[in-house]
Amino acid sequence: MQQVVEPEAAGHMTPDEFRRHGHAVVDWIADYYERIESFPVLSQAAPGDVRAGLPAHPPEKGEPFEDVLRDLDRTILPGITHWQHPSFFAYFPGNSTGPAILGDLLSSGLGVQGMLWATSPAATELETHVLDWLAELLDLPAQFRSDGPGGGVIQSTASDASLVALLAALHRVSDGDTERHGVAAGRYAVYTSHQTHSSVEKACRIAGLGADALRKIDVDPVTLAARPDHLRALIDADRAAGMIPACVVASVGATGTGAVDPVPELTAIAKEAGAWLHVDAAWAGVAAVAPELRWLNAGLDGVDSYATNPHKWLLTTFDCDAFWVADRAALLGALSILPEYLRNAASESGAVIDYRDWQVPLGRRFRALKLWAVLRWYGAEGLRAHIRGHVALAQRFASHVAADARFELVAPHPLSLVTFRLRAGDDATLALMRRVNESGAAYLTHTLVNGRAALRLAIGSTRTELRHVDAVWALLSAS
Amino acid sequence: MQQVVEPEAAGHMTPDEFRRHGHAVVDWIADYYERIESFPVLSQAAPGDVRAGLPAHPPEKGEPFEDVLRDLDRTILPGITHWQHPSFFAYFPGNSTGPAILGDLLSSGLGVQGMLWATSPAATELETHVLDWLAELLDLPAQFRSDGPGGGVIQSTASDASLVALLAALHRVSDGDTERHGVAAGRYAVYTSHQTHSSVEKACRIAGLGADALRKIDVDPVTLAARPDHLRALIDADRAAGMIPACVVASVGATGTGAVDPVPELTAIAKEAGAWLHVDAAWAGVAAVAPELRWLNAGLDGVDSYATNPHKWLLTTFDCDAFWVADRAALLGALSILPEYLRNAASESGAVIDYRDWQVPLGRRFRALKLWAVLRWYGAEGLRAHIRGHVALAQRFASHVAADARFELVAPHPLSLVTFRLRAGDDATLALMRRVNESGAAYLTHTLVNGRAALRLAIGSTRTELRHVDAVWALLSAS
Repeated sequence: MQQVVEPEAAGHMTPDEFRRHGHAVVDWIADYYERIESFPVLSQAAPGDVRAGLPAHPPEKGEPFEDVLRDLDRTILPGITHWQHPSFFAYFPGNSTGPAILGDLLSSGLGVQGMLWATSPAATELETHVLDWLAELLDLPAQFRSDGPGGGVIQSTASDASLVALLAALHRVSDGDTERHGVAAGRYAVYTSHQTHSSVEKACRIAGLGADALRKIDVDPVTLAARPDHLRALIDADRAAGMIPACVVASVGATGTGAVDPVPELTAIAKEAGAWLHVDAAWAGVAAVAPELRWLNAGLDGVDSYATNPHKWLLTTFDCDAFWVADRAALLGALSILPEYLRNAASESGAVIDYRDWQVPLGRRFRALKLWAVLRWYGAEGLRAHIRGHVALAQRFASHVAADARFELVAPHPLSLVTFRLRAGDDATLALMRRVNESGAAYLTHTLVNGRAALRLAIGSTRTELRHVDAVWALLSAS
Repeated sequence: MQQVVEPEAAGHMTPDEFRRHGHAVVDWIADYYERIESFPVLSQAAPGDVRAGLPAHPPEKGEPFEDVLRDLDRTILPGITHWQHPSFFAYFPGNSTGPAILGDLLSSGLGVQGMLWATSPAATELETHVLDWLAELLDLPAQFRSDGPGGGVIQSTASDASLVALLAALHRVSDGDTERHGVAAGRYAVYTSHQTHSSVEKACRIAGLGADALRKIDVDPVTLAARPDHLRALIDADRAAGMIPACVVASVGATGTGAVDPVPELTAIAKEAGAWLHVDAAWAGVAAVAPELRWLNAGLDGVDSYATNPHKWLLTTFDCDAFWVADRAALLGALSILPEYLRNAASESGAVIDYRDWQVPLGRRFRALKLWAVLRWYGAEGLRAHIRGHVALAQRFASHVAADARFELVAPHPLSLVTFRLRAGDDATLALMRRVNESGAAYLTHTLVNGRAALRLAIGSTRTELRHVDAVWALLSAS
């Protein structure tokens, strides 16, 4: 018999070593948050700087964990753009908070897979449960609760949600034919406004429809919301040409300017045409924790699927996209496959949910723990205060812009995103952005609105206070 | 002006509270590892048990973090199947280890997005760098290193890797036509053995080809490896029918029994037909850290893409699939889209990698930190000892099976997976599995080999010692 090498020869970290290094890492993070304002928001690294500080080859012998922390400070931090900095106003926020970090740490510690109910029942049941909780906190319509034919699941990102919604749509509209025979070029059409996130075009390409299958709905020049009359015209033209309208993706809080599409009107048109209606509310949807913002939910009772990201603006460390369907049958039809090595009695009883059939990958992390920790630590009260604080700060910033004749607001700003520009034109606007970003004092990004450059100021860090908002305005308006 | 509510009204966890609760969570995990053998490996929960222990509604007011930990013990743990238990022999392992957990904790703490180089340069550069390190540790061929036209990226899972490989294949074989015009049902064919993971069929469905596009290559009845002559025959038939062979997926360590396809022969046939050759070595590939196991790499110098999962058998907490391409042009062609709000000077210079163009989602976590921590903590020596220990334990188990006339080994077992059955037949074999699993003392799963049930014993927990292997054999052979 071959000699047996016991696995401990590998030099695994013992529980006591884990305690010691774990406390050090927790302290490192707490210290990082205490000193976060000492860093430039936008990394000032040039391409290749970080790699130049790393050894060319991996170590032959194991190294102490202290060395990892040393190199984190020395080599990694200069290459970090600080998303948790109070003056990070770029893109949309990506909140990472204490309870979420610790909930996710517990998930790493347990190290279980939730691909099937049977592979760790608590991973599936807690996920179903907290998505019901979240649906209640957002006052989402009843069709998304797990006690009927619908239900919720955590996807990695809103891009994944858009993709699986499209796959479910193709399943439903083709009565399952696409899974067997493929999508047939030129047969199916998808509709969304040009304000909608690029993930919808990417989903069309991934799903084999090609970018040509995507119809861009015109938007109102003031609200930047999709125009129902144009959706109707696009669908009519496609049907006249023998094409099948498969899916309409409406945005609630589109990436560029936060535009909100008229979901009730778009839904009515989609329904009449037999198309699936998916709502991408990745950033804005979570704001419905505040009752005064529940106009965001208008028309959701008629839609087929809905996505919003606790990992953007609801305090839950990436990745955590909450995705609900009104009827899970189409999703399962599109995505379920059952090889022998995954067969088990619980799945065959039909009494349980197997979330691998609700997503692209098979493996899945116990992500519900971090969302559970967030909802419990903050409670509904804390979540509402979080959203309201940011909305109020954004209104403050918008009032600064409105009061300065050199600037103009270029889109509605009912939430925490303000889009604005210099009246002096695109070059001046983009130069201003570059100057602020290169200063390291704040970071914001740009978009195009009706063909002209505009700056986006997205408030969302849990550390952003009035003073940071006033400071970025002072920087922007100093020139 | 609207009254400004400062965000701290939300009740965020302060750095000091984070220190305190963080230490408690670290200690909870260390304690969990110390007592892990006190739990039944397979959860004994019935459907609904976990949800029955959770409040029906989310809390209105925030709750102390101690309550989360209390309910973790009380409500969640009884619903956990313990993947890190030393007697977990089911599926494939999903290693979660100290350095990986702490590397991932640092990622949560930093809370950055690595979708573009510019959104945190270190996230991109460390990822490129550690994938070069890993390629060196596994002695992968030069075409996968980042200093040429190829390079590596972390995907979520091997399912995602198979999907993006297929999309790159379709891009290359259609010269970019599929992104614009779709895949045209019935035009493209994909080939893999019936031993290959179900993710390949799922990828065909997701990519719009439909399950009908997938050809199952016959396998050798003894080695269960794909037969090159049958691949050739399938391709010839498809070409004669006017179809285009797009992609061949070879397995190195297939899920059912660990079968290893003849990559050099399959590659030669794929190349001649103009098809992409992707190798899925999700579980087994990492074993090439040990030089004596580098037969696993045979033929990789000719393939287009390769995937193996540090999150399975290389000590890195989920999710971490390492995916390499020989030429990234096709991958970028398939997946890149550039909306205005993501434009930036670094990307336009062409001097940097933007990993959003290498994957399905846009957002991406700083996952390289955990792989970096693992490679540094263990070093090449520790990684080799880890793999060798498990291979030796598997050989020990196989020798037990071989010595007992009631049992038979049903597939080659050169690594850490042993597939076997009772000669008495399928019913006896499956009944034996159920008895062991229900005992809580160990957990293993089953598969079909040449149409007959077989049990899979996959060794992979970092805590598994000789005594656990001998104990599960004692249980299995007791009847």
